[in-house]
Amino acid sequence: MNKINIENLNDYFEKEITVSGFVDNIRNLQWVQFVILRDATGKVQVTIEKSASENSKMVEIINSLPVESTVKITGKVVKNEKVKLNGMEIIPTNIEVTSESLDELPFNFKDLENVNIDTRLDYRFIDLRNEKNNFMFKVQSTLIRYMREYLYNNDFTEIHTPKLLGAASESGAEVFEVKYFDRSAYLAQSPQFYKQMAIASGMGNVFEVAPCFRAENSNTSRHATEFTSFDVEFSYINGYEDVMNLEAEMLSYALGKLKEELGDKIEEVFGQPVVVPTLPFPTMRLQDVYKELEERYGYKVEESEKTDLTTEAERLCFKLAQEKFNHEFMFVTDYPAEKRAFYHMRDKDGKLQGYDLIWRGVEITSGAQREHRYEEICKNAKSKGLGDDVKFYLGFFKYGCPPHGGFAIGVDRLTMLLLGIPSVKETQFLFRGPNRLNP
Amino acid sequence: MNKINIENLNDYFEKEITVSGFVDNIRNLQWVQFVILRDATGKVQVTIEKSASENSKMVEIINSLPVESTVKITGKVVKNEKVKLNGMEIIPTNIEVTSESLDELPFNFKDLENVNIDTRLDYRFIDLRNEKNNFMFKVQSTLIRYMREYLYNNDFTEIHTPKLLGAASESGAEVFEVKYFDRSAYLAQSPQFYKQMAIASGMGNVFEVAPCFRAENSNTSRHATEFTSFDVEFSYINGYEDVMNLEAEMLSYALGKLKEELGDKIEEVFGQPVVVPTLPFPTMRLQDVYKELEERYGYKVEESEKTDLTTEAERLCFKLAQEKFNHEFMFVTDYPAEKRAFYHMRDKDGKLQGYDLIWRGVEITSGAQREHRYEEICKNAKSKGLGDDVKFYLGFFKYGCPPHGGFAIGVDRLTMLLLGIPSVKETQFLFRGPNRLNP
Repeated sequence: MNKINIENLNDYFEKEITVSGFVDNIRNLQWVQFVILRDATGKVQVTIEKSASENSKMVEIINSLPVESTVKITGKVVKNEKVKLNGMEIIPTNIEVTSESLDELPFNFKDLENVNIDTRLDYRFIDLRNEKNNFMFKVQSTLIRYMREYLYNNDFTEIHTPKLLGAASESGAEVFEVKYFDRSAYLAQSPQFYKQMAIASGMGNVFEVAPCFRAENSNTSRHATEFTSFDVEFSYINGYEDVMNLEAEMLSYALGKLKEELGDKIEEVFGQPVVVPTLPFPTMRLQDVYKELEERYGYKVEESEKTDLTTEAERLCFKLAQEKFNHEFMFVTDYPAEKRAFYHMRDKDGKLQGYDLIWRGVEITSGAQREHRYEEICKNAKSKGLGDDVKFYLGFFKYGCPPHGGFAIGVDRLTMLLLGIPSVKETQFLFRGPNRLNP
Repeated sequence: MNKINIENLNDYFEKEITVSGFVDNIRNLQWVQFVILRDATGKVQVTIEKSASENSKMVEIINSLPVESTVKITGKVVKNEKVKLNGMEIIPTNIEVTSESLDELPFNFKDLENVNIDTRLDYRFIDLRNEKNNFMFKVQSTLIRYMREYLYNNDFTEIHTPKLLGAASESGAEVFEVKYFDRSAYLAQSPQFYKQMAIASGMGNVFEVAPCFRAENSNTSRHATEFTSFDVEFSYINGYEDVMNLEAEMLSYALGKLKEELGDKIEEVFGQPVVVPTLPFPTMRLQDVYKELEERYGYKVEESEKTDLTTEAERLCFKLAQEKFNHEFMFVTDYPAEKRAFYHMRDKDGKLQGYDLIWRGVEITSGAQREHRYEEICKNAKSKGLGDDVKFYLGFFKYGCPPHGGFAIGVDRLTMLLLGIPSVKETQFLFRGPNRLNP
């Protein structure tokens, strides 16, 4: 491809180039027309002197052109320190209108403060023209790129597991049912069973970035009925600490690369720096977290609630991690085993071999060593009352299976925390909730 | 991670190391035990002298260990030219059994020739232990890695569009219906509408690698009800030739990188070389293809069938491309517009601005410049009888939309052709068809 991005125009001073984009704004003055051209990488001023006879056709075009139309502009890039926007302008020789905006915009996407979130989502394709929203997906894509890169560099294979399942496994209640010819299928809540199948298949280390579906009728800033999950699973671990270490290394690597590539722009657009976490990430036991939250911040909860972190406890963990460890991330371990999925390993004393990772006050991951011993996994499944639906899964462990572990990260939630955005409704390309299936 | 892969053991001669893997084979002789250890990267011989007293515990373990159990072996790597397998062996000091194979394997995965495909798929986790099958996914992952890399390097953003839709758009008949709380949702057949939404949102260049769902009750070697699609869409093109060029460049780049990284092993395991295609790819018009197929190979079809390539014509296109162009790929253009989706652009004479790409006798892509002009796209939709279900989509083009185009490649089909595998049943991690939802 040899398209020129607006952000790279500095490389073309005094040269004749062609750029394309949306007409972001037009100021039609007595002697001159200023057109602001916008592409996915930035904006540039295009200046048309009305008096020059060779400009008459362009002047006429701009006179009647609605903003948000798209144009292809050929002209010379010149330095001009008087131009506030990057100190440059394009002096055009030709303007071609490639599409015309035919209607008034449903709202002003440059000022979303007072626009209702549902209106924004109804017209998401307008909402995404907002600079922050548009750039958000470049950031997300770049972060995921480097999370993948870390894994490729460590001998991981990307897999694509089916989302259509024959049985409503794991936890039947929150599964969507699909009409599948003359029978029913179910949508995968996670690739958990299948990434473990890859382990049992001897594939070594695998990951998947794919949609997950949860039929949860709840409306919070963190939940969606469909979301993108970054799932990792790998073989021959010595304990769940190996899983924590890999996850920490991956995040640190990817955030480092992201900072290098887009750190300045992220700080400019979102007003907060990309912080590259140091290794290792701090770790605390759940019980100790509650103890310190009470001691430090007077935060008290009933004993019965201490089987998991409350939303408020998660929030306070950010403060705790910063003050105690000078860190934004914190692993929390030693959750009560009975509250966790049957495939998480317990040690001989019944202690859970798993963890949660809290970032900036929100849980972004559950990870664990998995139970790979056939007798144990059968026992665990039985004790949770799981029957025929998981039988195929239990079979994976019958013919030899490496010790293994893994974790999953919600991509939308990760983006939300990275950029300080209040809700996954805004970080999903198109949010899906119990009351939202459109556009 | 600091695990040692078997393929890298050459770097550790005379060193004490730890490796883990499946017990691929055991030869228990009078004086010595030979254990073949297998991980995702290769195999190595482990040699245990029975007479040495310090080996007694290991000898005992191996005496009763079923093959396909997993073990962790510590020992010294030594050169030994007498060992056929890579001229090396491990002299172990410790063997730890990390999982035991508890049952006889349902079939011999090292010789799949006579195993029924359904049995193989029922026990896919055993089937994938086959060297070819296991390595196939490493190849697929590597190819996709470099297809993505090409796009990242060309300013593309990866997106994740919803698979749950509010309306059965595009073509209602082949859409799966989902019970969505108290209403119906539908599974996405492709991300087509949404990647175009990204274009209308000003995101520039986007791609997605994600599942697609087709409720087609057909059983062929190329079709599945769920498959992974590699979808690309980009802005400010000058014509569909730009789309063809980008696709050709991407494939050439990715196949080049794949050859560099895994070419030798692919040739060894699959018996065929990775061919890096030269640029540009040859292009022929549909009518000319049929003309030459008749002239060269006596292949005749009814005029009425010449609106598309028949399966046999596709197959012959490989021969034609090789003989006429010395190339494995061939673009075919000038399909009759009325047979194509309404969102493909037609020029002022009604000529379709799209193409198919044929590789090794199979169509792997349809691509096109898209219709981005509001009046035209509305007219096209109407002429196909599409109504309210696509109204939200038509709205994308109302407020300015860059000229754009794109294509989609089926990942499973691509893998099938690359490695000479007869069916997507074998190249999908877990095949999904009308009669197959398990495991």
